[in-house]
Amino acid sequence: MISVIILGAGNVATHLFKAFKKTEEISVNQWYNRHLDLISPYKNDVAIIDDLSQLKEADVYILAVSDDAIKELSSKLPFENRLVVHTSGGVSLYDIDKKHRRGVFYPLQTFSKDACMDFANVPICIEAIKSDDYHILKSLAISIGSATKKVNSDQRRVLHLAAVFVNNFTNQLYRIAHEITESEGADFDILKPLILETANKVQEFSPYMAQTGPAKRNDKKTIRKHLKILNNNPHHKAIYELLTDSIHMTHGRKKL
Amino acid sequence: MISVIILGAGNVATHLFKAFKKTEEISVNQWYNRHLDLISPYKNDVAIIDDLSQLKEADVYILAVSDDAIKELSSKLPFENRLVVHTSGGVSLYDIDKKHRRGVFYPLQTFSKDACMDFANVPICIEAIKSDDYHILKSLAISIGSATKKVNSDQRRVLHLAAVFVNNFTNQLYRIAHEITESEGADFDILKPLILETANKVQEFSPYMAQTGPAKRNDKKTIRKHLKILNNNPHHKAIYELLTDSIHMTHGRKKL
Repeated sequence: MISVIILGAGNVATHLFKAFKKTEEISVNQWYNRHLDLISPYKNDVAIIDDLSQLKEADVYILAVSDDAIKELSSKLPFENRLVVHTSGGVSLYDIDKKHRRGVFYPLQTFSKDACMDFANVPICIEAIKSDDYHILKSLAISIGSATKKVNSDQRRVLHLAAVFVNNFTNQLYRIAHEITESEGADFDILKPLILETANKVQEFSPYMAQTGPAKRNDKKTIRKHLKILNNNPHHKAIYELLTDSIHMTHGRKKL
Repeated sequence: MISVIILGAGNVATHLFKAFKKTEEISVNQWYNRHLDLISPYKNDVAIIDDLSQLKEADVYILAVSDDAIKELSSKLPFENRLVVHTSGGVSLYDIDKKHRRGVFYPLQTFSKDACMDFANVPICIEAIKSDDYHILKSLAISIGSATKKVNSDQRRVLHLAAVFVNNFTNQLYRIAHEITESEGADFDILKPLILETANKVQEFSPYMAQTGPAKRNDKKTIRKHLKILNNNPHHKAIYELLTDSIHMTHGRKKL
């Protein structure tokens, strides 16, 4: 049994709380947030507090707060030499006050407020200074069904950056596709199976092997037709040109 | 029962052939290709020919050939006033010789040579001049389990362009993520659940609603950290900047 205290009330905190509650291998001793109202819906399931001086003992303290709050909150914790971890992809392990045993428990996934999250689909990137702490964090992740990956700070940093490309930037390409289709009254919905298949394909093949389309086969006629459609939107056109160039560079074609 | 003759031997031709063969509502009368060897593996399942003068009668002739070949092949067909369609997203219906009843049967999906394709996941965009022809093509699509969408030429053209964004360009973002993670020896594979979840999310929510991340919340500190990592790769950096700007524009933030 691993005992845990969660600090913070955002999506990651809430999804972790729900996952921890489901398994008997983890006990959530307390849930702290500055503003009690955000966690009060859970007051029958866990002891909720808004005062750091009330914090009890636990095996792991999870700071699931915004990046900017990690440093200060960790220094305010009224104890030392206990395992304190944050859940951020982009913040150094050393932002946690050095009076603690420090670690990172970074779930590499996008969380929605309402949608239920199966942690079998949430790999956890783990960083710790001491081997014992690493093993506690690994057990914690395994208890909720997550795959785990030991990463160093540089690796976590590039994973966080890569996540922006495959999640935020990809979603923005969906958005642009939405705008392009709506401009002619075409139905964005019929692109959805293609969106899914594109994501499914790289579960098995490398993105390099999975690539197809006019840029890959250097089909200049189609590229010209597309650029002509985009003439009324210089911003979309710039993205089309840059990503076409990028595919050319990857697959050994000349620039546009 | 709808009778069909397929012309061409690429991925679309092959996947359509396999799907047509599975249903009793469609009979594939012949399969034509310039080079017989490409379709000879199927010679026990269908009459294969490499000579246009041998073409028999059928309800629909499907030109599943490269964009550039459509015009010439359609004009060489030794008959007239029959329903002849192409399967391309980017080619005008009027590229088909006007001696035929013309149409388009455009499957909006990415096809791999080997992977099996369930046409329940392949929406077919249909264009036809005559209403009767539209209904034949619609029945053909429904017989293989596809959803159908009636589109005009402008709509098909923007759908094809939008497909490049959600398929080819998205896949290139996966490729860049692969390069970024490999640069630090991090494991691209642990991004795969995030890739899937990103695609899953827009099945239910609009891309606008689904957006998260540093650009959306205008988290300048994280954006600066990412740009610093990308300093060694100006091309990746340019894509990061352009797509961050794009998210800012969509969500009402100032440019970088």
